[in-house]
Parts: sequence; C-alpha cells; structure tokens
Amino acid sequence: MKLSVLAKELNIDYKGKDFEVSSINTLTEASSNEISFLDNKKYIDALKETNAGAVFIKAEFVSLLPDGVEAIISENPYLSMAYASKYFAYALIRPTKSATITKSAVIQEGVHIGNGVVIEENVTIFANTFIGEDVTISEGSIIYPNVTIYNDTKIGKNCTIHANSVIGSDGFGYAHTADGAHIKIYHNGKVVLEDNVEIGANSAVDRAVFGQTLIKEGTKIDNLVQIAHNVEIGTRSIIVSQVGISGSSKLGRNVVMGGQSATAGHLEIGDFATIAARGGVTKSIKGGEVYSGFPLIKHKDWLKLQAKISKFFNK
Amino acid sequence: MKLSVLAKELNIDYKGKDFEVSSINTLTEASSNEISFLDNKKYIDALKETNAGAVFIKAEFVSLLPDGVEAIISENPYLSMAYASKYFAYALIRPTKSATITKSAVIQEGVHIGNGVVIEENVTIFANTFIGEDVTISEGSIIYPNVTIYNDTKIGKNCTIHANSVIGSDGFGYAHTADGAHIKIYHNGKVVLEDNVEIGANSAVDRAVFGQTLIKEGTKIDNLVQIAHNVEIGTRSIIVSQVGISGSSKLGRNVVMGGQSATAGHLEIGDFATIAARGGVTKSIKGGEVYSGFPLIKHKDWLKLQAKISKFFNK
Amino acid sequence: MKLSVLAKELNIDYKGKDFEVSSINTLTEASSNEISFLDNKKYIDALKETNAGAVFIKAEFVSLLPDGVEAIISENPYLSMAYASKYFAYALIRPTKSATITKSAVIQEGVHIGNGVVIEENVTIFANTFIGEDVTISEGSIIYPNVTIYNDTKIGKNCTIHANSVIGSDGFGYAHTADGAHIKIYHNGKVVLEDNVEIGANSAVDRAVFGQTLIKEGTKIDNLVQIAHNVEIGTRSIIVSQVGISGSSKLGRNVVMGGQSATAGHLEIGDFATIAARGGVTKSIKGGEVYSGFPLIKHKDWLKLQAKISKFFNK
Repeated sequence: MKLSVLAKELNIDYKGKDFEVSSINTLTEASSNEISFLDNKKYIDALKETNAGAVFIKAEFVSLLPDGVEAIISENPYLSMAYASKYFAYALIRPTKSATITKSAVIQEGVHIGNGVVIEENVTIFANTFIGEDVTISEGSIIYPNVTIYNDTKIGKNCTIHANSVIGSDGFGYAHTADGAHIKIYHNGKVVLEDNVEIGANSAVDRAVFGQTLIKEGTKIDNLVQIAHNVEIGTRSIIVSQVGISGSSKLGRNVVMGGQSATAGHLEIGDFATIAARGGVTKSIKGGEVYSGFPLIKHKDWLKLQAKISKFFNK
Repeated sequence: MKLSVLAKELNIDYKGKDFEVSSINTLTEASSNEISFLDNKKYIDALKETNAGAVFIKAEFVSLLPDGVEAIISENPYLSMAYASKYFAYALIRPTKSATITKSAVIQEGVHIGNGVVIEENVTIFANTFIGEDVTISEGSIIYPNVTIYNDTKIGKNCTIHANSVIGSDGFGYAHTADGAHIKIYHNGKVVLEDNVEIGANSAVDRAVFGQTLIKEGTKIDNLVQIAHNVEIGTRSIIVSQVGISGSSKLGRNVVMGGQSATAGHLEIGDFATIAARGGVTKSIKGGEVYSGFPLIKHKDWLKLQAKISKFFNK
Repeated sequence: MKLSVLAKELNIDYKGKDFEVSSINTLTEASSNEISFLDNKKYIDALKETNAGAVFIKAEFVSLLPDGVEAIISENPYLSMAYASKYFAYALIRPTKSATITKSAVIQEGVHIGNGVVIEENVTIFANTFIGEDVTISEGSIIYPNVTIYNDTKIGKNCTIHANSVIGSDGFGYAHTADGAHIKIYHNGKVVLEDNVEIGANSAVDRAVFGQTLIKEGTKIDNLVQIAHNVEIGTRSIIVSQVGISGSSKLGRNVVMGGQSATAGHLEIGDFATIAARGGVTKSIKGGEVYSGFPLIKHKDWLKLQAKISKFFNK
C-alpha cells in the first residue's frame, strides 16, 4: 500500500515522498520500506537512528528525524499506528500452498493443516489440533489434542505441547481514542519455541506485535500459564502453573517462576533468579537470588517481614 | 410441567392452584407462568412485588406473598429450587432445525454447527470450533479454532474470540444438602456479547442461571480470564489476563482490571475505575479512581502503606 | 526391559541380580518386578520395608536396603529415575483394540475414540472431543466439546466435564542435571474421577507420576483450575475458579477453596476446612476452620490483622 493512500485512509495530511509501505515496525528494526512511530520520549535516541521510510510523529519532534526519513504528522502517533496496523495484518487464510509432511510423522484424524506448513520427521500430532498457515514443527515434537497453533509459529525439535494450549494468539494491545474506544493493534509478529520446550495444558503464548515472542531451549512451562506478546524466556527456565508474564519482559536462563507468580511488562529478570509462588515482579531484578512477595523483596527478607508483622500485631 | 407434578417429584406437599410451569426465574423477573424462590431476607421487597405464579418459601414468610401468588413451602427454598431446576434444564441437543448461514461466511472443516444457528455476513469460523444450538454470530466476527460456544449464545458484530475459549458454560452454582452434597442449579440463562468485543485465548465466560451474562460494546478481554454467571461488564472495559470476576458482579464502562486482579460476587464497580494488578475487590467501589491491594484500597494509599510497612519493620 | 540393559543405557555399572523390569514405582508401592529410588532421607523408613526388585540409591545408603533388594548405585538417584522413566513411558498410541460403546450413548461427530475405550449407558460426548486410549466413561456422564481426556483416565457416573478442559495431561515433573537441564519424568499414573464430579471449562487435571490423581465423589471444580499430579481431593469438596493445587497434596472431604487460592505440594487439608479467596496454604492444616491470607492464618485473625495494619499505619 502506497503511503499516500494509507495517509488518506487515516485522514492524515501527508505531503512527503511517496513509497510502497511493506509493513510497520519499531524504530530500531524498521527498514526503508517500512513505517514506524514515536509514542514515547524514551525512544528519541532510537528515532535519531531509525532507518524507517517514514514515522508517525508529533509535530514537535519532526526536527529530530534523520535525513531522508519522512514525517507522518499525528497528534497521537500510537493511535495512528494502531489504525494503520489493520492494513498490514497478515491474511488469516492464505493462498493454497502444499504442506510438507514427512512420512514418519503421525497425524491423527481431524487435524487442520494450514497452507505451507512444514512437519518434520517423527512428529506426532493428535486429533483435532489446528496447525495454522506457514507453521513449522521440527523433528520429534509432540502436539497433543485440541491444541491451536496460529499462523507463522516455529516449533523446535523435541518440543511437547499439551492439550488445549494456544500458541500464537494475538497479543493484548490496543491504542485508545479520546472517547475511550480501544483500537486493535494487529499483531504481525510470531512465536518461536526453540528445541526441547515443553508447554502444559491450557496455556497461552501470544504472538509478538512486531518481531517474535521467544522461548529458548529447554524451558518447561506448566498448565494455565500466560505468556504475553514479545516476551523472551531464556534457556532452561521453569514456569510453574498459573504464572502470568506481561508483554515484552525478558527472563534470563534458568529462571524459576513459582505458581501464580507474575511480572509486569518491559522488565528484565537476571539469570538463575527464582521468584517464589505468588511473587509479583514490578521492576527489573538481578539474577542469582530468590525473591518473594508483592511488592517483591528478597525471599529471606519476606519471611522475616511476615514474622515481624505477625509478632508486632499479635503482641 | 404442572406445578402439582413438580411438587410431588420434590416430595413437597402442595395444595395451591395448579398451573403449567414454564421455568424458574428471580422474584423480580418471574411472570405468572414461572416459579421463583425466596432464600434471603434481603429479597423480601422483591417478594412483595413478584409476579411469579408460585414461590418456594419458608412457612414464616408466606404471609408476605402478594395476592394470587402461590406458596410452595420448603424448609430450604434454595435447595428446592436447585432440585426443581433440573426439570427445566434446556435440551443439550435439540430437534433438527436448519442453520442460517450467509454465503459470505467462511467456515472451515470440522466445525460443529448446531440446530437453529444463525451466522451472518463475513463471519469467519476456524476449524474444529463448536457452535451450539440456537447460537447467533453477527456480521464480521471471527471465531478462532477449538472455541466452544454453548447453546443460545448471542455474539455481536465484529467480535473476535481467540482459540480454545469457552462461551456459555454452566455457572458454578449449587445448593447444599444437610449432609454436604452439592445439588446442581441448572443454568438456563445465556451469554450475550455486544459488538466489537474481543476475547483472548483459553478464557471462559459462564452462562447466566436466569437472564444473561452480558459483555457490552467494545470491551476487550485477555487470555485465561474467568467471567462467572450473571456478570455484567460495561462498554469499553479492559480485562487483563488471569482476572477472575465472580458471579453477578457488575462493572461500569471503561473499567480496567489489571492482571490477576479479581472481584467477589454481587458487587458493583463504577465507571472508569481502575483495579491495579492483583487487586482484590470485595465490596462495591466508586468509579474514577485507581485501586490496589487485598484488602482493596486506593492505589496511592497502597503505595504509601507498603512503603510504611517496609520502613517500620526494617528500622 | 532387563535391568542390566537399563543400567547400561544409563551408564551405571550394575552387577547385581538381573530381572525383567516392568516399571518404576515408589518405595512403598513397588513390587519385586519394579524398580524404585531413594532421593530424600525422609523416605528411609519406606526404604527399609520396600518390596522393590531394585532401587536407585546413593552408595552411603546401600546398607539400609532389605535383603534381596538390589542396589543401583547413583550419585543422583532422582535424576537416574528420570532418565529411566523414559523407557517405561506408556505408548501414546496403542495397538488397535475395539472400543465398547453402549447404544444409548450419544457421540457427536469429530470425536476421537481411542483403542480400548469403554463408554457406558447414557453418556453424551459432544463434538471434537478427544478420548484417549483405554479411557472409561461411566453411565450418565456428559463430556462437552473440545475436552481432551488422556489415556487411562477413569471417569465415574454422572460426571460433567465442561468444554476445553484437559484430564490426564502429564504432571510438571523434572529432575535437574548439574548444568541446569530439566530431564522429564514420564508420568505413567492416571486420573480417576469418582461419581458425580463436575469440572468447569478450561481446567486441567494432571495424571499421576505413579499411582493416581484422585477426585472423589461429588466434588465440584470450577473453571480454569489447576490440579497437579498425585493430588487427592476428598468427597464433596468445592474448588472455585483459578485455584491451583500443587502436586501430591491431599484435601479431605467438604473442603472449600475460594477463588484464586492455592496450595503448595505434599501437604494435607483436613475435612471441612475452608480456604478463603486468595488464601495460600503452605503447610498442612486442620479441618473445620476458615483460613485466609498468605501466609495463611485463621480467617478471623486475618480480618483483625488487616484492620490493625490499616489503623496503625494511618494514625
């Protein structure tokens, strides 16, 4: 879609250079045939170095754009991006393209296999599972019944996905209008599971808005876990049942998250950190420690604090 | 079913006027061919104005019934209602009645379409989804794979339901016998989603016991969320992942509930209220404020309280 | 598999008596054709009375073995057991064996019926459900759409399983190598639901590692609940939405667990205990009381404590 046409659709007055827009991306990742957006001052450094073809931007920041990057002026660049995202949404159902399925794969009845799917050696897919368009499932993986794998997901070797889990659903992302409506941000990123990942029953892993949600090698995830868009979980981590990990948070290697613990978004958890059950992580934390509570503190301090509270108020 | 026959089935001695009972309903909603029940003194005002044909009621309250409303005397009216509900349960599978499916709808293979279903223009239903009896799905909605929609659900225009979610399952309602058995209350109400509602993956919205569970226009619900029976969520609300909303609670417009927050049942949350992550709402609260914690307080007070606790016990 | 062959596969030097190993089991339950393991000193009493044919054991404890029980010496018996468990994993798909389905059962289209399944009188199974190998579903039970029931599950009479729930998925059990990899413990136990059990939508009940996960007569479980491996729930208990019960915990009869409450593993909850919403049970508790909070205390004390905290810090 031509940028001039897109701007007209969005009721934006655009007079810059015209070009065919391939997609939307972050300031850091966008290339010259993509458009991006500046919605937060903390990304001004990224703005100054962006390679995007054009950027949704408030008038006051236009002077910071690198040479050759066009401004698409908007009072609310995030909202404009949300409206624009619809025009670049991936096709839910794609042109017929044959799937590549090895002879050693076992695929039960009632499995939906999308266009362009690749299923490698010794994969087992149980009945009534849904494998979306252009999904790859690498050798030795087991997909239990009634699992749904959305378009473009990549599943590594020897992964196991238990029944009724969902991989690749849209992230929970909206921009808000002045009168409180929520405008969907179409999620064109994907989910990548590396090798030896196991995911329990009834868990959900959302696709990225741009780029990918990534679960690294050997990580094990229990039942009823929520992994939001653009999360990255390091190798050999353990995520216990009913944990929720919010958008864009990044866990290191061998992180352990106890049952019903959770994180806010956009934070980092260092290697070998353990979050005890129910812990609520609201800012980035160092690795190699055990944490508890909400607000989160070190586990040994939490135990002391609870003992002090109990003693003080029972005296 | 004749009331005299029902009473005999329940081992209740009934000598009042006989009539054909069409269903069970609340004191407020019941009409003259329905029966109701009084299980809590707080509904005595409703009792005095009920239009029900007859009411399960303790002997001591019979004198409060309006003229022409019959008493079905029971020591435990709630339990009697539960036993009676089985006789009015909707048929799980109904007589063959053709579905109405527009030509522009895309319906993949393996979709179960119940009797009397209506699927409007430009609806997309992915493989292996279950659409129960007499469900309506309005134009432009997308139903992802392995979703289950129970009988009688109404889905508005341009709704999106992500994979493996369940709409219309029975609410969690039982009456209890003296020896601790749980007698199921059959849920004959339904779920109504208005237009532009989006529901994430692996969420559950229970049907009403009577009447409807209602999610109003433009509300967005994330993954792994629990919406209990008879809940009402106002327009343009945001319900983040792993939230639980208990039975009969009523949220206003543009309410935000953060991740893993929850409400007790039978309470109200005012317009534009925000419940921070993990907040636990146990009584009705005004709109326009941000709340946190469990017990729930205003968010700024919660931040202060946590700081004070931390400081006091670390001195 | 011969024990000598198994030991060689695990790179363990084994010179004891050879025999055909049928499976792995606990010290208490193992019989002479099974092997077991000692991973924790608290099981030394069980070790002294085990009937296992052989035991993975550290060299220092070998002298405690009963006569005739062979030692399979390992520096990390739990890890050795995990590696060994793979060789005894049940077959995901089994030799063709006809299912036994009564004429009065209603089975909709798209249901997968495994080998050796038994479906009794008046069972209803909705579309797109998965019934694994050798599952039994007793008379009058209702299985809603898109449910997944793994191999070997036993479902009693008049049970109801709501849509998209999963019964019998693998427990979340791994042994850990020195470099932090997680070695799957294959779960050969099963799930047993006794009569009149109801399970909500999108819940998960994991199979036992050995033996069974057991939900007793008349217990009702809400939506989005997690029941881990080897849990036992007594008769007529009530488990509200989003509860998580950790591995090997044992609940008595008529226990009530409020919404979002949880237990740690390997503990006991006495008959008629009530855990209020959000309560976190970390050690065994007596029955007949109401508990709240995390750390868990009696509910009336929790109410007082919260009032005192609020008053003290607001003075």
